[in-house]
Amino acid sequence: MEPVKHGPKPARLEVIGVTGIGEVHRGDDLAGILLEALGEMDEVLRPGDVVVVTQKVVSKAEGAMAQLDGDDPRSHKPLVEREAVRVLRRRGDLLLTETRHGFVCANAGVDLSNVERGQAALLPEDPDRSARRMADALQGRTGTRVGVVVTDTFGRPWRRGVTDVAIGCAGLRAVVDLRGSTDALGRELQVTEVAVADEVAAAADLVMGKADAVPMALVRGLADSCFPEPDEKVGIVSDLVRHPSEDLFR
Amino acid sequence: MEPVKHGPKPARLEVIGVTGIGEVHRGDDLAGILLEALGEMDEVLRPGDVVVVTQKVVSKAEGAMAQLDGDDPRSHKPLVEREAVRVLRRRGDLLLTETRHGFVCANAGVDLSNVERGQAALLPEDPDRSARRMADALQGRTGTRVGVVVTDTFGRPWRRGVTDVAIGCAGLRAVVDLRGSTDALGRELQVTEVAVADEVAAAADLVMGKADAVPMALVRGLADSCFPEPDEKVGIVSDLVRHPSEDLFR
Repeated sequence: MEPVKHGPKPARLEVIGVTGIGEVHRGDDLAGILLEALGEMDEVLRPGDVVVVTQKVVSKAEGAMAQLDGDDPRSHKPLVEREAVRVLRRRGDLLLTETRHGFVCANAGVDLSNVERGQAALLPEDPDRSARRMADALQGRTGTRVGVVVTDTFGRPWRRGVTDVAIGCAGLRAVVDLRGSTDALGRELQVTEVAVADEVAAAADLVMGKADAVPMALVRGLADSCFPEPDEKVGIVSDLVRHPSEDLFR
Repeated sequence: MEPVKHGPKPARLEVIGVTGIGEVHRGDDLAGILLEALGEMDEVLRPGDVVVVTQKVVSKAEGAMAQLDGDDPRSHKPLVEREAVRVLRRRGDLLLTETRHGFVCANAGVDLSNVERGQAALLPEDPDRSARRMADALQGRTGTRVGVVVTDTFGRPWRRGVTDVAIGCAGLRAVVDLRGSTDALGRELQVTEVAVADEVAAAADLVMGKADAVPMALVRGLADSCFPEPDEKVGIVSDLVRHPSEDLFR
């Protein structure tokens, strides 16, 4: 990613929960589902909108699901071991794992909530590709270029509670680089790269109910510097996952 | 903190950058500065608004600053060692430290950006108290009860880029507990506690320029379940900092 000067921030950002989305099934067309739900809300996509969509519905639509061996709550353990490329820590039933994408998260992202009993949702095979396909489909049908962020819910060390983070993105820079900018007093900024995609994911979670079936949101009003040039490659795996060699905790 | 059932999420959230705030100096009245800036914007505080304010201006107003020994970029090292209670990792000039509040962050929060040359900003002595004082001052002057979150910019392991997180809060639950909730399919949720204060901090950073002198924002429209009962104690240090005994990375 080229270093990008951060332009002026927007005055106002809107975060809009997309309501009225029912259960999502394998093969479902997420772009169509979003556009239909927006229609019911008398809302349309605008250039510069970012669509946020949870991993859960992406995995369901892509069929990234697995059958559990019975209803035993531990029956997902073999799945976790299959999905993880490395185990960083263990505590009881919790495995802190690295996935093949490079994400570090609990239980390799294998998730039993909001799926039918006896099933588990896995992470999408390539969440950046999932985001790109949805962005392309939305542009194809509406003519409007929007960003798409696929989110999941991760814990973190040192702080209690989970937050939503980005696991895939398209049409939005994952990280906006402030290197070379100066602060308001003309001093070169020490803090450089802002994980914009993660901040968008966190903002969207404030209107996306885990229990309330609001699996998509729009974030409207992001600064121009958050958006890539037409031929600029962006992605969470390439831009936001820290390489093990620069990581103090792997 | 009592477990709290998560109510319905709001349909729409607004994140509003507060513009027109100049340099902040020791002894300045942040509540007054905010109200004046909002007046210029033809904006007023509403019940349920959350005011987000960066650590930098809180530290400046409280005089949590230190003189550096000359202009050598390394001259903050003795300060970092004084402010840290523990060093978790070192790499070159970067110390990953634990502060006396329990925060794990780079260089014990000692920050040279957006301060005058020769000076460094330290973390506020008690950021939860800073938030409470500002919330009380705002209520005293406007009659409106709002939440206040003090934010700082932290890196994290495994993921590139920094995000803003909460280091102090008042009038807003740091963590909202979903234990006992069921998901949309009636299955008990596995993921339980959402770090709402951190998600609010991240959302606000999208309109708060590090280089653009927008050190405050309003987040408007959070779910009722994010707000504490009148006599409920909330705080980042008490509720959001993970105790070392439950931390896999200390």
